[in-house]
Amino acid sequence: MGEGDIVAALRRAAGKPAAASGIVLGIGDDAAVFRPRANEDLVFTTDLLIEDVHFTRATFTAAEAGHKALVRSLSDLAAMGAEPRFALLSLALPESTTAKWRDGFFRGFLDLAKRTGTVLAGGDLSRGPVVVADVMCCGGVPKGKALLRDGARPGDRLYVSGPLGRGWKKNRTPEPRIDYGKQLRGRASACMDLSDGLAMDLRRLCVASGVGARIDDVPAARGASLEAAMNAGEDYELLFSMPRRKRPPVWALRIGEVTKAREILLCGEPLASGGWDHFR
Amino acid sequence: MGEGDIVAALRRAAGKPAAASGIVLGIGDDAAVFRPRANEDLVFTTDLLIEDVHFTRATFTAAEAGHKALVRSLSDLAAMGAEPRFALLSLALPESTTAKWRDGFFRGFLDLAKRTGTVLAGGDLSRGPVVVADVMCCGGVPKGKALLRDGARPGDRLYVSGPLGRGWKKNRTPEPRIDYGKQLRGRASACMDLSDGLAMDLRRLCVASGVGARIDDVPAARGASLEAAMNAGEDYELLFSMPRRKRPPVWALRIGEVTKAREILLCGEPLASGGWDHFR
Repeated sequence: MGEGDIVAALRRAAGKPAAASGIVLGIGDDAAVFRPRANEDLVFTTDLLIEDVHFTRATFTAAEAGHKALVRSLSDLAAMGAEPRFALLSLALPESTTAKWRDGFFRGFLDLAKRTGTVLAGGDLSRGPVVVADVMCCGGVPKGKALLRDGARPGDRLYVSGPLGRGWKKNRTPEPRIDYGKQLRGRASACMDLSDGLAMDLRRLCVASGVGARIDDVPAARGASLEAAMNAGEDYELLFSMPRRKRPPVWALRIGEVTKAREILLCGEPLASGGWDHFR
Repeated sequence: MGEGDIVAALRRAAGKPAAASGIVLGIGDDAAVFRPRANEDLVFTTDLLIEDVHFTRATFTAAEAGHKALVRSLSDLAAMGAEPRFALLSLALPESTTAKWRDGFFRGFLDLAKRTGTVLAGGDLSRGPVVVADVMCCGGVPKGKALLRDGARPGDRLYVSGPLGRGWKKNRTPEPRIDYGKQLRGRASACMDLSDGLAMDLRRLCVASGVGARIDDVPAARGASLEAAMNAGEDYELLFSMPRRKRPPVWALRIGEVTKAREILLCGEPLASGGWDHFR
C-alpha cells in the first residue's frame, strides 16, 4: 500500500464530514478548510504520543494506542470547556508495523472521534524509527467563555471530576470529560485537565493564578494509593476551582481550597514536587 | 532545564501575539484560544519533520531544521491561497540534543514565523529517540476562496511559480510562496505546492480534477537536471492551472496544458510514475 492508498482508506473509514461540523473540505487536499460559526472562539491543542515514551506496542493494543493518541488532546479541549470540532493526525510508522496494527490504531482513534463528534479532517503520514502520533484538536466555545488556568482566587473551592490514581493500567481507554467541561462554563474560575498527576498539575494551576492551595482530601480510586492519586498522572479528570457562592456540579469531588499563601499544603504539610516532566 | 523552563523561554522568544492576529490566549494553558474574523474560512495543515527521514543533524544546521519544519506547512497554506495566522509546534528531542541545538531550532522556526506573520500559539514537548517536529499551521482566506486541487479543466494552462529541481542542497531555506498564493485567489482553477516533485504532484492534481496534462516545458533551475526538476521534490513552488481567458501573474512560468485524456505526456511521451512516497 502506498501513502495515497492509506489516505484513501482512512478517508473512507472517517466518513464524510457532516455539514454542521464546519469542515468544508476534509482529507485529501494541501489543507483542510473549516468555516467557523459566528460568536464562537476556537481552541487549539496538540499532543504527541511516542512509542516507548508514552506507550509500548507490547503493553497497548493498536486500538488502545489510537484511543490514547486522541484522548490526550480531547481532554485538553474538555479542560477549556470546549466542544470538539475536528482533529488532524500526524502519524509516523516504522516498517515493523503491520497493516493490521495500523488499521487497529485508526479504529481506536476513529471510534473515539465519532463518539465525541470530532471530524478527522486531515494530517500527515511518514516513516519513522518508532510510532509517533501527533494529534491536533480544534474545539468551539462561546466567545469569551473558555476556561483558563489563571482565574483561581483565594477562598475558591477546589474540585476534581472523579477519583484519581487508576492510571492507564486500570483505565485502558479513559473518556475525555467533555460534557463536564461544558457544564463548568461560567462557573469555574480556573480549570485544567489532570494528565501529569495532581501534585504537578495543581502546582501549575496555582502558578498561573498566582495563588496557593490547601488539599484536605484526595479522592483515590479504589485500589489506588495516595502516592498514585497524587503523582501517577494520566487520569484525564478535570481539576477546577469555583467561587464559594457557585454551586458545584453533582459529580464534582471537593479536594480543598485556594489560598493566598503561594504554597501547596497536603493535610497541613508542604507538598513536595512530583509528577511527570520529560526534561528532568 | 525542565519542560516548564523551556516553554517559558520559548514564550519569551515568540513574543506577545499582536491583537490583530486573533490569538486571544497563546502558549501556556491547556490550549490556545483563537477568535476568527468574520467572513473568513480557515485552512489547516500539519507536517511531520523527522530526523533521518526528512533531515539529518549532520547535514542541516539546527536553524535550517527549524526553518524546514515550518516551511512545509506554510507552503501548504500558500497553495490554498491562505494567509498564515498561527502555528502549533510539537517537538520531540532525544537526550543527545544540546540546549544550543534546541535554541538554534527555535531561532530558525521563529525567524520564518515572524517574517510571515505566523504566531507560535502553542504545542507540545517530549523526549523521543530522534528529533521529531510536527507543525500545524492555520491560515485565513476569504469565505469560499480557498484554492483547491480539483478544479483543473481541459484547456486550462498549467504553470509553476519558479524554476524546479534545486532541492534542499542548493536551497537551504526555501521561502513559502504566500504572496503568490494570495495573487491566485479567483484566478487559478486548481493549485497545490510542489513538495514531492512535479511528476508525482502533477499526477495528484490531475487525479483530483479528473483530467490529464501535457507538459511542454520544464523550467529546470540553473544546474538542475530534467530528472531533478521532475522528481527531486522539496521545491516549495506552486503548481497551478488557470483558464485561458485569465491573465497569469508576471512571475508564472508556463509548463503546459490540462487535457481531457487522463494521462500525463512529457514532450509527447507518457510520463512514468516518479517522486517520493514514504510507503513504497
